[in-house]
Amino acid sequence: MTRKELFKEIKRKKSFLCVGLDSDPMKLPKCVLAYEDPVFEFNKRIIDATKDYCVAYKPNIAFYEAQGTKGWESLKKTLDYIPKEIFTISDAKRGDIGNTSNLYARAFFESMNFDSVTVAPYMGSDSVTPFLDYNNKWVILLALTSNKGGLDFQTEKLSSGEFLFEKVLRKSLEWGNEDNLMYVVGATRAKMLKEIRKIVPDSFLLIPGVGAQGGSLEDVVEYGMNKSCGLLVNSSRGIIFKSSENDFDSVAGEEAKIIQSKMELLLEKGNLI
Amino acid sequence: MTRKELFKEIKRKKSFLCVGLDSDPMKLPKCVLAYEDPVFEFNKRIIDATKDYCVAYKPNIAFYEAQGTKGWESLKKTLDYIPKEIFTISDAKRGDIGNTSNLYARAFFESMNFDSVTVAPYMGSDSVTPFLDYNNKWVILLALTSNKGGLDFQTEKLSSGEFLFEKVLRKSLEWGNEDNLMYVVGATRAKMLKEIRKIVPDSFLLIPGVGAQGGSLEDVVEYGMNKSCGLLVNSSRGIIFKSSENDFDSVAGEEAKIIQSKMELLLEKGNLI
Repeated sequence: MTRKELFKEIKRKKSFLCVGLDSDPMKLPKCVLAYEDPVFEFNKRIIDATKDYCVAYKPNIAFYEAQGTKGWESLKKTLDYIPKEIFTISDAKRGDIGNTSNLYARAFFESMNFDSVTVAPYMGSDSVTPFLDYNNKWVILLALTSNKGGLDFQTEKLSSGEFLFEKVLRKSLEWGNEDNLMYVVGATRAKMLKEIRKIVPDSFLLIPGVGAQGGSLEDVVEYGMNKSCGLLVNSSRGIIFKSSENDFDSVAGEEAKIIQSKMELLLEKGNLI
Repeated sequence: MTRKELFKEIKRKKSFLCVGLDSDPMKLPKCVLAYEDPVFEFNKRIIDATKDYCVAYKPNIAFYEAQGTKGWESLKKTLDYIPKEIFTISDAKRGDIGNTSNLYARAFFESMNFDSVTVAPYMGSDSVTPFLDYNNKWVILLALTSNKGGLDFQTEKLSSGEFLFEKVLRKSLEWGNEDNLMYVVGATRAKMLKEIRKIVPDSFLLIPGVGAQGGSLEDVVEYGMNKSCGLLVNSSRGIIFKSSENDFDSVAGEEAKIIQSKMELLLEKGNLI
């Protein structure tokens, strides 16, 4: 999917919501447990209920990998079930060198047909560039994450005066551009978005941390929105595990709709729709 | 496996060699292709041929993951086949937050019984500490990697005057110690080992990059060996793909033996055996 196509979907659905399919098997509602593949059954119902309100799905690979071969099957089936016009993010946070990154790229872009994969920057250029060799596929590079430990290294001040995450952003522009690179920026760091936009004005940002982790959607939009929206705001638990009863899917759908409505207002306010 | 037990094995085998099971299905010798699980057949023969000369095996997870469910089965069978006294490293370079790191820990330490897993430090404390909650299991943290891109961020000078990788080492000592933390340091950065030993004198270091990537075993030992050896030197392609013919296993065994002999001399020279 191209940047233009993604923005078109955002305008059509009046939403820049990404639903995180962090479908922890330990947390599934009882009503899906009797199915042959409870994780897929859960995801299928979540997708049916939320697909009109979101433009992206992001399974965190850990939740599938932890189930071994069964988990990979659930993931593959889930991916095949997601409507083609919805952007898919393999939240794998991979990062290995050359030949090995090639293999990860093959796994996520060929064996499974994800649109994008999240990548950790610590190993530098040759851990990222192999993913950029694919047409119409995306690297989403970790820049400034929303977790506590995000402050351990990412906000270290370098001798050049910039923060480490700013160096990551700048360096990455030697490898790719706004048409094949996005960045993870936690909503809890919303005020940093102003500085980030100076470095990557046109890029899409994947923003976790709204809701459960305490980030504010309004702040994210105020400091981070650009003329092609440029934002994918993720919510996982706040949507998919809002209810643990039989009505989990309709409750998830309602929650996604509430967020979509807020986003619609913000898109209107920004004159993007 | 404890640090003491690992050192005991090093002394018994007169070796600190780690064999990297980067068993790329595209590179397997023809003679194993007819087997039901060619990757496992290849690994089995490599293990039979090299197990007397090494103290650790390190499958790079990418090569297995790229094969989907089949790859995970090959990996599981391989792990079960490795003799219990040999240290096992899941080279996965994972790094995600809290709950998700828990799941990765469960995947590698419980579903599969690896002794250790490599972890990327970019996301900080809560991406590392969940792995440290397991008894007798190890985190091997990326510090200074041997690849070209390793110089993009890891050797950035911070305003405090230290390099980023030095900050990673120092910070990690708030989370663990030499009995549950090791570090990846590329052999191509051997001269940095002197500085690294000032920060983590007693820790084990996993050293890739000897051989194919141009690092020198002698330099690594000169600058990095400590009183419990403190080194696991990895070779992957240089051993397992030394021959692509029917004799691939015996050639791998011979190559491992050559390296072991060099290591024996170096251990004697260091008065460790």
